[in-house]
Order: sequence, then C-alpha cells, then structure tokens
Amino acid sequence: GHPVYRDMPTTIFEHMSARARETGAINLGQGFPEGPGPQDVLQAAADALLTRSSQYPPMPGLIELRTALADHYARRQGLDLSPQDIIVTSGATEAIAASLLALVRPGDEVLMLAPLYDAYLPLVERVGGVARVVKLMPPDWRVTRDALEAAITPRTRILLMNNPVNPTGIVLREAELALLADLCTTHDLIALCDEVWEETVYDGLPHRPLIGFPGMRERTVKIGSAGKIFSVTGWKVGWMCAAPPIATLLARAHQFLTFTTPPNLQWAVAQGLGWPEDWLNDQRAAYQASRDRLAAGLSQAGYVVQPSGATWFLSIDLPASGITMDDVTFCNRIIDEAGVAAIPISAFYPDDPVTHLVRLCFSKSDATLDQAIERLAAFR
Amino acid sequence: GHPVYRDMPTTIFEHMSARARETGAINLGQGFPEGPGPQDVLQAAADALLTRSSQYPPMPGLIELRTALADHYARRQGLDLSPQDIIVTSGATEAIAASLLALVRPGDEVLMLAPLYDAYLPLVERVGGVARVVKLMPPDWRVTRDALEAAITPRTRILLMNNPVNPTGIVLREAELALLADLCTTHDLIALCDEVWEETVYDGLPHRPLIGFPGMRERTVKIGSAGKIFSVTGWKVGWMCAAPPIATLLARAHQFLTFTTPPNLQWAVAQGLGWPEDWLNDQRAAYQASRDRLAAGLSQAGYVVQPSGATWFLSIDLPASGITMDDVTFCNRIIDEAGVAAIPISAFYPDDPVTHLVRLCFSKSDATLDQAIERLAAFR
Ligand SMILES: CSCCC(=O)C(=O)O
Ligand SMILES: CSCCC(=O)C(=O)O
Repeated sequence: GHPVYRDMPTTIFEHMSARARETGAINLGQGFPEGPGPQDVLQAAADALLTRSSQYPPMPGLIELRTALADHYARRQGLDLSPQDIIVTSGATEAIAASLLALVRPGDEVLMLAPLYDAYLPLVERVGGVARVVKLMPPDWRVTRDALEAAITPRTRILLMNNPVNPTGIVLREAELALLADLCTTHDLIALCDEVWEETVYDGLPHRPLIGFPGMRERTVKIGSAGKIFSVTGWKVGWMCAAPPIATLLARAHQFLTFTTPPNLQWAVAQGLGWPEDWLNDQRAAYQASRDRLAAGLSQAGYVVQPSGATWFLSIDLPASGITMDDVTFCNRIIDEAGVAAIPISAFYPDDPVTHLVRLCFSKSDATLDQAIERLAAFR
Repeated sequence: GHPVYRDMPTTIFEHMSARARETGAINLGQGFPEGPGPQDVLQAAADALLTRSSQYPPMPGLIELRTALADHYARRQGLDLSPQDIIVTSGATEAIAASLLALVRPGDEVLMLAPLYDAYLPLVERVGGVARVVKLMPPDWRVTRDALEAAITPRTRILLMNNPVNPTGIVLREAELALLADLCTTHDLIALCDEVWEETVYDGLPHRPLIGFPGMRERTVKIGSAGKIFSVTGWKVGWMCAAPPIATLLARAHQFLTFTTPPNLQWAVAQGLGWPEDWLNDQRAAYQASRDRLAAGLSQAGYVVQPSGATWFLSIDLPASGITMDDVTFCNRIIDEAGVAAIPISAFYPDDPVTHLVRLCFSKSDATLDQAIERLAAFR
C-alpha cells in the first residue's frame, strides 16, 4: 500500500492561479470575485476583532450565526431548520470532508454525478468509500432515472451532489430533484448536497434545496458557504445542516477536523445575513450582468458559449467555436499566449472526461472581463 | 459496520465549557487565555481585513507567513526550515488531521503516549490506523526504551506525540527525545510532533523540537499553532512543517480539508512573528507567574499540585490532597458546588485511565485565579 494521496496532483484551481500569478495572466480560472468583498461585512469582521472575543467560540459555531442561518433559509428557501441543525465549519470544503468522515463506512458506495468538483473523489476514497460516478452528457447534462438506477447497488449509502453545478452552471430542474429525492428515499440514501452556489442563481429562478423535497428532511446534509454568499472566498466560513441524528455525527467529525471557526468572521457573517434581502438580490443581479457581458463579448469574438444559469462560471465549446484543440491544450495556450487563465472541464472527471469545454469565471469587474474578451478575441 | 464517530462523545473541553457557560462557573477547563489577545495582533488582523484581499490566498498559505515562520524557528529553535517546508492550516487540529490522512495507510500502526490529547485516537482509527498506546506513569511520566520497544512492530509506521505535553505540563527531557529519535530512525517511523505548546515552556528551559535531532529532519512533521503563540485560540491558524517528499503529501490532504486559511489572520500572525523576541519572552514570563500564583494558592488551600513545566495547565493530585473522589466525580462536584470548571485527566486515556489527577488552566487574570482558589479552598 502507499499513501492514498500520493498520486494526487495539486488542485487545478491552485495550479492555474499559481501560473496566473507567475505569468501575470488575467485569472478567470479559480472561482473568486475580483473585488475585496462588501465593505460592510469586512468592517463588521474588523470591528468584531477589536470588540469581541478571539478565544474559542462554541464548537458548532456562534449561536448568533446558527440562528441567522436558520432565519436566512426560512426567508430565502422556505426551510424550517433550527439553529441546532446547523454546524459552522471552516469553509464548505471542511463541511464536505466532515460529512464524508462522519457518514461513510469503509466499503459504502457513494453515488456522484460527473462533472464533479475535484475534492469529492479523493475524499470519498480516503474515507474508505467506493465511488460510483454517473456521467452526465452535454449540452444539457440531464439526470435520468435509468443512469442512476444502473449505478445504485445494495451497498450504496450516500448521494454526493452539487446544485447549482460547478463547473457547468446548470441548475437542476424540479423533475430531476424530485427524481433524486425519490431515489434517496427508495434506496435509503443520505444526500450530501453541496449548495454553495445557492445565492448565485440567475434569470429569476429560485434555488430549490433538496432537503425541502418530500422525505428528505431527515436524510439530507445541506452544505453552504459564506465565502460564496458574501463574495469573500478567503474567509473559509461554511456550514452543514442536518436533522439531529445526522447532525450529531457531523459534529463529532468537525470537532476533530478544525474544532471551530474564527469568531469574528462568524460574527460578521451573522450580521450580513440580517441585512435586507435587497442586498443579496442586487449582488445576484450584478453577477448576472457580468455573466451576460462575458457571454456577449465572447460570442462577438466568435466563441460559442454554453448557457449558464448559475455560479460564477460559463463554458465555451471549443469545436463549436471552430477550435480543434482539446481543453487542456487550449488552457495551456491561452495562459501563455493570450494572458488569460481558465479551467479545462476535463479536470472535473476522474476518467473518460469531456474534453471540448473550457470554464471561465465571470465574477470580475467590467474592465477585467473586457480585457479578457479582447485578449481571447485576438488569440483566435 | 456503523459510522466510526457514532459512539464518540463531544470533546470534554467543549462539554465542560458548555457547562461552565450554563452554570456561570469560572472556566479553568478548556485551555484558553482570559484576555482578548495582544492588541497589536488584533489590530493587524483588523487592518488586513480592510486593506488586503479577502479572496483565496495560496493553498499552502501566504508566503509572508511561511517566511516569517521559517525565520521564527531559525531564531527561536535553531532550525533550518525553508518556507516551502511549511503549510499553513486552519489550526493545529487540522494539521494533525491532515497529517494522519496523508500518511497513515489502512493497517499502519501508530504509536502514541498516554495521557494523550483526545482528538488523536479517533482520528487515527478513522483513517484506518491501528493505535498502539504506551501508558506513561505519574508522577514523572518517564518515557522508557523498554515500554516503547514492546509496542513497536514491523507494521508501526508513525509516532504521534505531543511535547510539551497537554495535560501534564511535562517537557520531555533531552534523553527521552534522543531515545524517541533513535527509535524513529531505527524502525523507520515518521514522527508527527504536536508542538503547539513550544512557546509556553517555563523556568528558563528551551523548547527542543524533535525535528532537530539527528536523522529526524527528513522524517518529522512539526505542528504549531498561532492560537497558542499569540493567545488567540479562536483564530485557528496553525501549520505543519516537513521536508519536501512528506510536505507534498501533507499539502494534498490539506487542499481537500480546508484548502486554505483566512488571509487577514495569516497576515497578522506573520506581522506578530516579526516583533522583537522580548514580546514572546514577556508573555512567557506572565504565564509562568500565573502558574506560580495558582500553584501557590492551591497549595495554601491544602491541595497537592503536580509540577508543571509548560503549557497553560497544572494538575492537582486528589488522594495526596486528602480527597477520596475520583477525578470525574471531583470535576462534577466542583462545577456545581464550587463554581469552578476543570478537566479530569482520565479524559486523556482511551482505556485504563489515571483517575486521581485534575487539570486546571492557569492562563487567566490574577483576579480570576484568586477567585477560583478561594472557591476551591472553600470547597474542601
Ligand atoms: C478551493 S479553490 C476552487 C474554487 C472553486 O470553487 C472553483 O474555482 O471551482
Ligand atoms: C480544542 S479545545 C481544547 C483546547 C486545549 O488544547 C485543551 O484545553 O486541552
């Protein structure tokens, strides 16, 4: 045997950001907003450092934040969560790791949908799980009963999913969510729902949390991220929500992973969640405008852009754009020759990847997007 | 099979702090300083929130912090680490978890010394390791070659240790460290050294890091904590230091656990490490004075106090103090009847515990210590 992580590369996001830093390329790879984040939330965190305790907060998180999250989800998603159902984590990545450490027994099968976020598979394997990956197909990435049922066995215990979906920007349709909920209840699966993109859904669509579907309240872990909601990706404040029997197991895993999360950041997130909802809606409209700006500019430059209904990402279709390179080659060429960093979609597959799509991050200023468009136009 | 964490209780530290919050008891249980932390480091973190990026820092940490840590360890401990050897984590607990996830293969045996910090055993078991616990005996908790060699087998791969030792306040003696280093090199073990208490060694003694012993540079993971060094336990900024082949594996595990750590806190820690060393020495002297104050007061009240050479903790010996209760009973009684929370040493054993010692945290104001002494005197 050898260490489970030996052959694992550095994440594609870190790799591309490091190359962007080295080359000075415009970084449309790793997903983060260009700005510093909302001034009020930064100020609240700074104030809390000087006026509140910097010692250990309670292990499951500040009660103020857990209460604010329960209120936020009641208001925004019609959910009935109690503060006791919510455990604050050091980012959504910790929430995913803690959930898998808490819930996967060696030999348990974990159902996932590809393309999938690159942390999922190594974590599943490291905790002794057996991955069952169902590959969705472009352009509409539809989830079908046949494909899922073919992958479920008596050993399947967990569905690990992401909605809205990184990297495709897909929002799962109502019927697909109902199908997933039905499969979870029928086959007695726990759903780990990475919903970090829940506040970046565009075109007036609502976010529909899987935990709200019939039969799912007691068998769902809903994972969220303040870094995404407040556009401060470095804060690493996340959470996981689940009914008490599962929440108890999650807390066990959390207490041995990070134990707790900086109280001043928790405090600022609690404050921000209390702001009038207009704020969230305005931010969402601004990201939608950025999506539209990048899509329009790239289209004008001759790139074929896939529809993106959510997240900070859109994809270009290389062959449809008349480009014969695969995604990795294209990304390597544009970082060096055009000065633009992007992410190849093939990085989101454990094997048999889709190789004709390239993901670009649009949570940037107009000036940055325009310059990237100009460079990518010149590259053609 | 059942989830590995099912039967695990909430950590004793969280449990006792929650009871202290409920009852209003003076909390000498969980280890944290009473004050807010040094004003300059709080201000640096607040300033960084408003003037520097809150987006993802590099995955292994800010280069400013990694460089400051290499300089700090060169100056304070004579070590020759490069910034590339250092990975910043979201607290030392994450560093321990990441190290075990990175290095323990299912079936590997992990050697530990009891009393042991309560996160070690569940983590070792969760990653598939087999625990080999060598029980040290009071009052001097001496590490002997015979006991260790009896526990080492051809499957032993890791030594997971803590020095200075929580809960005993013991500083391992030079000969014990040399013995551990000798065993690691002879039996080809990797040493995971939890050295979070390195800056809380008293009575003029130096901290001697195991990584500095012959043959250990290439086989040691040295783990540290800014929360402990800067008296801000809630910040959850830690690190792990190792030579490149091991550091590469550690970074893999870290990127899937938390990915990175809030940049403003990293920045403030980097600033603080650059301050004149007097600051650290003064803080150490202040903690030593608190230790002496609590020890003297308790002795005067008729308690027999075990010598403590480091950490924020000292222990009282119940039978020697003429108390016939075991440690758990005593802790339950004093939280309710005296209004003082403490930690039973038996919480640091997986089985066959030492039950006659109770740990008290002395990193508190003189007024708090005096009040606790008064209450414990009245309880007798
Ligand atoms: C943890 S870095 C990756 C950030 C992100 O969600 C993405 O770029 O997909
Ligand atoms: C993570 S809470 C425990 C803090 C500590 O180191 C102790 O009290 O022993």
